[in-house]
Amino acid sequence: MKNMNSALLNNVSELTKLARKFNCFYLSGLHQGICKPFIVAGHQVGLIRPDVLKYLHRFPEVFRVAGKFVELNPAFRDYQERTVKVAEVLQKLRKDDEICALKGWRDECFEVSTPFYHESLLEMDRSAVCLFGIRNYGVSVTGYLNHPSKGLCIWLQQRSFTKQTWPGKWDCFVSGGLAVGYGILETAVKEAAEEASVVGELVKKLVPAGCVSFYFESERGLFPNTEYVYDLELPLDFVPQNADGEVESFELLTAEECVQRALTPQFKTTSAPVLIDFLIRRGYINPENEPNYRHLVELLHVPLQSIYNWSAEITSNGDDSEMQY
Amino acid sequence: MKNMNSALLNNVSELTKLARKFNCFYLSGLHQGICKPFIVAGHQVGLIRPDVLKYLHRFPEVFRVAGKFVELNPAFRDYQERTVKVAEVLQKLRKDDEICALKGWRDECFEVSTPFYHESLLEMDRSAVCLFGIRNYGVSVTGYLNHPSKGLCIWLQQRSFTKQTWPGKWDCFVSGGLAVGYGILETAVKEAAEEASVVGELVKKLVPAGCVSFYFESERGLFPNTEYVYDLELPLDFVPQNADGEVESFELLTAEECVQRALTPQFKTTSAPVLIDFLIRRGYINPENEPNYRHLVELLHVPLQSIYNWSAEITSNGDDSEMQY
Repeated sequence: MKNMNSALLNNVSELTKLARKFNCFYLSGLHQGICKPFIVAGHQVGLIRPDVLKYLHRFPEVFRVAGKFVELNPAFRDYQERTVKVAEVLQKLRKDDEICALKGWRDECFEVSTPFYHESLLEMDRSAVCLFGIRNYGVSVTGYLNHPSKGLCIWLQQRSFTKQTWPGKWDCFVSGGLAVGYGILETAVKEAAEEASVVGELVKKLVPAGCVSFYFESERGLFPNTEYVYDLELPLDFVPQNADGEVESFELLTAEECVQRALTPQFKTTSAPVLIDFLIRRGYINPENEPNYRHLVELLHVPLQSIYNWSAEITSNGDDSEMQY
Repeated sequence: MKNMNSALLNNVSELTKLARKFNCFYLSGLHQGICKPFIVAGHQVGLIRPDVLKYLHRFPEVFRVAGKFVELNPAFRDYQERTVKVAEVLQKLRKDDEICALKGWRDECFEVSTPFYHESLLEMDRSAVCLFGIRNYGVSVTGYLNHPSKGLCIWLQQRSFTKQTWPGKWDCFVSGGLAVGYGILETAVKEAAEEASVVGELVKKLVPAGCVSFYFESERGLFPNTEYVYDLELPLDFVPQNADGEVESFELLTAEECVQRALTPQFKTTSAPVLIDFLIRRGYINPENEPNYRHLVELLHVPLQSIYNWSAEITSNGDDSEMQY
């Protein structure tokens, strides 16, 4: 195998290296087995790292750390009770100011639901979902135009330096998380108005174009992310204007400049999948110029839907002795 | 789980049911554990069903049926020797005329390669790869136009009634398998000329747009398929003409008519992923009109890359303990 590994290293494109970076947890951490499944109402909804686990031990009436897994107290009866009990813990932890991720408290809730059938179980602050490895969903809009001389061009935004996450990094044109109470298109429309002043007739041109899924990990936590992607063809004379103070600047780049920008540390790693997917769908990245094309497409669609299968295994075996990942 | 299953059944769209059909092996057969991993040169390259296994028992000098797996005799030294030995067996089986799939012998070889690093191991006739569950690759072209009054329209082909597989069924505009010696774009260009007389300036407009992957099973065998997809915008006055006798007819349908056609038994099941992917990328199928949108996207990108991991399991218990996927 050693020969093949070195052959592999020689053939891996820069884009594939980037795709491995935004899938670092899928490709590596997931298999190390140091995270414990997080179970709510009999369903695995996440994974918890040891660094988070040590805080949860303080709240045995809420989180039961039972050998191989962590369970939200099954006595909590419903969505509301689970939400309240978890929020109390998170507020205490936030007050203690020990957990990096909670410094970015958002006052915006994400939903936690069962795998497969997407039954809602509870909601928690957006800043906390990465502590539990909860799947999270967002929308991303690629604003582009076919420039008469430069060809395919894409508007990127530079995130505000005051943002809690990825401050000052280059990012997609427009994006936002799917918060409780908002629809998918609705979120795209709202974010397009707030971040780039795309309104009126222009916002009606949003074209949904699929999803990308990847599993990233950082110091802050675990990010099993799915982004609903939208394309928006912009007029040549359109210049985006930020309206919510969350954007430092916008810049129009050629497709090639975008790729180069995405490969720098100045680009938000978890926004690269959206850009790569767009460039693949438009034929800019293609089987003739990308040696790892198929692998790259695979890394834009990792099977998050089947990673959290702990409860399925219990169910099918009658007990938990056959747990597999 | 029972309640949720019935809730699920109530919410499943027709398109999702179709996506489950072309992934019937991924969603069901794969987990039944009745197929044996097929190992070549230490790598799992396929799966073998019991109905095929009984024929392979006749050739112990070529196929070693060793308890949990089937191994191509590891004494075969290289690509050529493996290819010759397997071809001899296949020719004998073909002569015996007992295996349905081999009645469609093609005299066209597909390559068998290692997972992950795609090292070529052998080639075998296209008709036989489904007997061994070998991953197979093809190209599919969606010929479309934006009709001034009807909106998005797509050309479909009806397959010739004399074709060995799916005779008379409705299919994508143009498609073909990736045979040994042909490149990806090269195959798309060749098939577009042969099947639909798309040549000259028009064929230069082929736009690569990604891949779809799914795992189908039929009486004939196992189909872990990956299709490289291409889009081709056609002029309003273009009418495809078949040049190789493999097409019965062509028909221009609206997007909605295409969906309805794909849902009938007259549509080639394994071509539906390409059509659905196209309609998702163009926004025709979207999160607002498809209740299982995300699940549908997932079923167009099932992780074929990590299904055949048998050699990894052997390896992880032995020397190369650091191998990860």
